[in-house]
Amino acid sequence: MKKIAVLGAGSWGTALAIVLADNGYNVSVWTRRPEQALEITGQKTNKKYLPGINLPENITANTKMEDVINGVDTIVLVTPTLSMREVLPKLNEKLQNPVTIIHASKGIEPDSLKRISEIIEEEVEEKHLKSVVVLSGPSHAEEVSLRQPTTVTVSSKDKQACEDAQDLFINNYFRVYTNQDIIGVEIGGALKNIIALGAGISDGLGHGDNSKAALMTRGLAEITRLGGQLGANPLTFAGLTGIGDLIVTCTSTHSRNWRAGYAIGQGKKLDEVLSGMGMAVEGVRTTLAASQLAERYGVSMPITSELYKVLFKNKNPKHAVDDLMKRDRTHEVEDLTSVFATQLMDQSKENNQ
Amino acid sequence: MKKIAVLGAGSWGTALAIVLADNGYNVSVWTRRPEQALEITGQKTNKKYLPGINLPENITANTKMEDVINGVDTIVLVTPTLSMREVLPKLNEKLQNPVTIIHASKGIEPDSLKRISEIIEEEVEEKHLKSVVVLSGPSHAEEVSLRQPTTVTVSSKDKQACEDAQDLFINNYFRVYTNQDIIGVEIGGALKNIIALGAGISDGLGHGDNSKAALMTRGLAEITRLGGQLGANPLTFAGLTGIGDLIVTCTSTHSRNWRAGYAIGQGKKLDEVLSGMGMAVEGVRTTLAASQLAERYGVSMPITSELYKVLFKNKNPKHAVDDLMKRDRTHEVEDLTSVFATQLMDQSKENNQ
Repeated sequence: MKKIAVLGAGSWGTALAIVLADNGYNVSVWTRRPEQALEITGQKTNKKYLPGINLPENITANTKMEDVINGVDTIVLVTPTLSMREVLPKLNEKLQNPVTIIHASKGIEPDSLKRISEIIEEEVEEKHLKSVVVLSGPSHAEEVSLRQPTTVTVSSKDKQACEDAQDLFINNYFRVYTNQDIIGVEIGGALKNIIALGAGISDGLGHGDNSKAALMTRGLAEITRLGGQLGANPLTFAGLTGIGDLIVTCTSTHSRNWRAGYAIGQGKKLDEVLSGMGMAVEGVRTTLAASQLAERYGVSMPITSELYKVLFKNKNPKHAVDDLMKRDRTHEVEDLTSVFATQLMDQSKENNQ
Repeated sequence: MKKIAVLGAGSWGTALAIVLADNGYNVSVWTRRPEQALEITGQKTNKKYLPGINLPENITANTKMEDVINGVDTIVLVTPTLSMREVLPKLNEKLQNPVTIIHASKGIEPDSLKRISEIIEEEVEEKHLKSVVVLSGPSHAEEVSLRQPTTVTVSSKDKQACEDAQDLFINNYFRVYTNQDIIGVEIGGALKNIIALGAGISDGLGHGDNSKAALMTRGLAEITRLGGQLGANPLTFAGLTGIGDLIVTCTSTHSRNWRAGYAIGQGKKLDEVLSGMGMAVEGVRTTLAASQLAERYGVSMPITSELYKVLFKNKNPKHAVDDLMKRDRTHEVEDLTSVFATQLMDQSKENNQ
C-alpha cells in the first residue's frame, strides 16, 4: 500500500496519521525527538499527545526527514506555524520527486501577512511542489483518535489535488468536504483563534451565553468582511472551517486561546498569562496580524480592534465590552450583502464553467 | 412616559418587559393567571419564571386584555406559538387604534407552513394593524433580566417600524441590530430548534464536540438552502438569529429541545420523552413542518430528514448518524454559492435604492 509522510507528531499530526493508517496507507511520521520516534514505532503509542490511544501497526516514526519523505508523493504538514520557515527549506534539499503538500496548520504571519499556503509556495521550490492543499475544520484531535464522527474541509487552487486529498482521508468516521475557496478556509481557521480569546475574556468577566454567542456571531461577521476584501467566498465562513471550527474552539475549555482569554478577563496581564502557560498562544499573534490586515485593507473590525487594545495597550476588558455595546445602531447584514453580491456572482460563474 | 403592552408573562415576555421598563416606558403585561398578575403588580416579582429578579416599578400586569392594550400603539407579543390563533382574534374585538405588533415567538405552523408574522397578518384585521416586526436572537431570558450584555435583531417589511422597534429596546446591555430580511429571521429562529434536538441526540449518543459542531454547521447549511428557496438572504443565517441563536440553544443544557434530544440519544422513545417533560417541545413540531417545507420546495435536507425518521419512524439514532456520515462526497459551499448569487444581487440592489 502507498506510503504517506506526516511532518509533525503532536496530537493533530498523530490523529491524522491514525485516519490515514485506518484507510490502509503506510504512514511515516517525522518528529525531532528520538524517544518519541521510538515510542511511536516500537510501542505504538504517543502518550504525551494522545494518552490512552493505541496506534495502528502501519504507523512508524523517524527523526530523519529524508527517510520519512523518501518515495512519497504526498506530505501532510502539521508543524507549528512558527517553525514553517525553518522546516520547509529542508524539503528542497531532500525531495526527489515533486509532491503535494496537505497542510493542517492555522495562522497568519504578522508583518508579511501571509497565509500558510503562501508561505509553502514561497519556501518550497516550484520544481518540488505539485500542489498545496489545506485541511481544516472542527476537530479535537482526541475525538478523532477515538474515531468519533468528525467533518473537515479540504481546499486547494488545484481541484484535482483537492479531490485526491478528499479520497485519501475520507472514511466512515471522518467525513471530508471539498471547497475551492482556499483563501476563506485559511483565513477562517486562523482568525477564529482571535474570537476564542475574546470568548475566554467574556467568560472570565462573568458574562453569560448571550454575550459569548454575540461575540462569536459578530466576530464571524467581521472576519467575513475582511475575508471578502481578501477575495474569499463569504459562505465559506458559514461553513465547517468558519463557524464550525469557531464553535469547537470557543465552547471548549481545553482551547489554549480560550484559557488565555479567560485569565485576562479575570484581571491578569498578558505577560503574566503567557509566561504562566509556557507555550505559544496562536490567537495573540493572529490578533496582531488581523489588526494589520484590517488597517491595510480598510476593513472595520471593532471586536479585533478592542481585543488588540486589551492585549497590547492595557485596556480594561470591561471597558472594551462596554464600548462594543455602545456603538452606533447598525444593520446586521446589509453591508455584507452589498460587498459580496458581485463576488458571489463571479464565483458562481467560475463553478459552473 | 409612553405605555407599551406585552402579551405573555413567561420568562421571555418578562425579560423584554424589564428592558422596556429600564428604557423608561410604562409596561403593561397581560397574563391569563390572576395570581401571577397580582404578584407582578404588587410584589414586583415573577418567581416561577425569573426567580431572584426584582422587577422595575413601572411594570404592572393584568388579566384583562382590554386594559393592557388600552391606548398603546405598540404590542409586544410573546405568547406560545400554539396559542397564537386563539389569542390574536381577541385583538380584533378590543383594539381601538391600529398598532404595531413586535413578536418574539419562534415556530412554523405544520400543514399551513406559515411563519408567525404571516399568522399575525392573517388573524389581525388590516385596519387594526400598522406593521409587524419580529425580534429574535441569542438570548436566555435569565441573562437579560440580569442585564448581561445581549444582542438581538429586529426585522420587518416596514423599514420605519423596524427602526422604531430598535429605538424602543436598545440600551447599554441590550444591543439591537436591524435586518430587513424577515423571512430569514423567522425561518432561522424556528428551524434552529430542529438542530438543537439533533445536538441533544448527538450528545446523548456519547459523541463529542466535533460531531456537534458538524451537526450545527451542516444543519445551518440546509436551513440556509431552504431559506433561499423561501426568499431569505443567506447571510441572515450567518447572523444573530441564525448561527448566534443556534449556538446559545445547542450549547445550553437548559434548552428543552436539547434535553428531549439527549433523552432520545440515550435510547428513550419520543412518547416517553414528551410525556416525561410535561410541556411542548417546539423542535418536534418544527421538524414536521420543515420536512413538509423541504418536500414542497424540493430542497435536500439530510439532517432534518434523518431526524424526522428518528422522531416519527422509530429509526435508531445511531443508524441515522451512520447514514449521514456515509453519504456521497460533496462540496461544501458550491451549491449555496450558485443558488444565492442572483438573490444577493437583487437584495443588494434593493438596499441601495
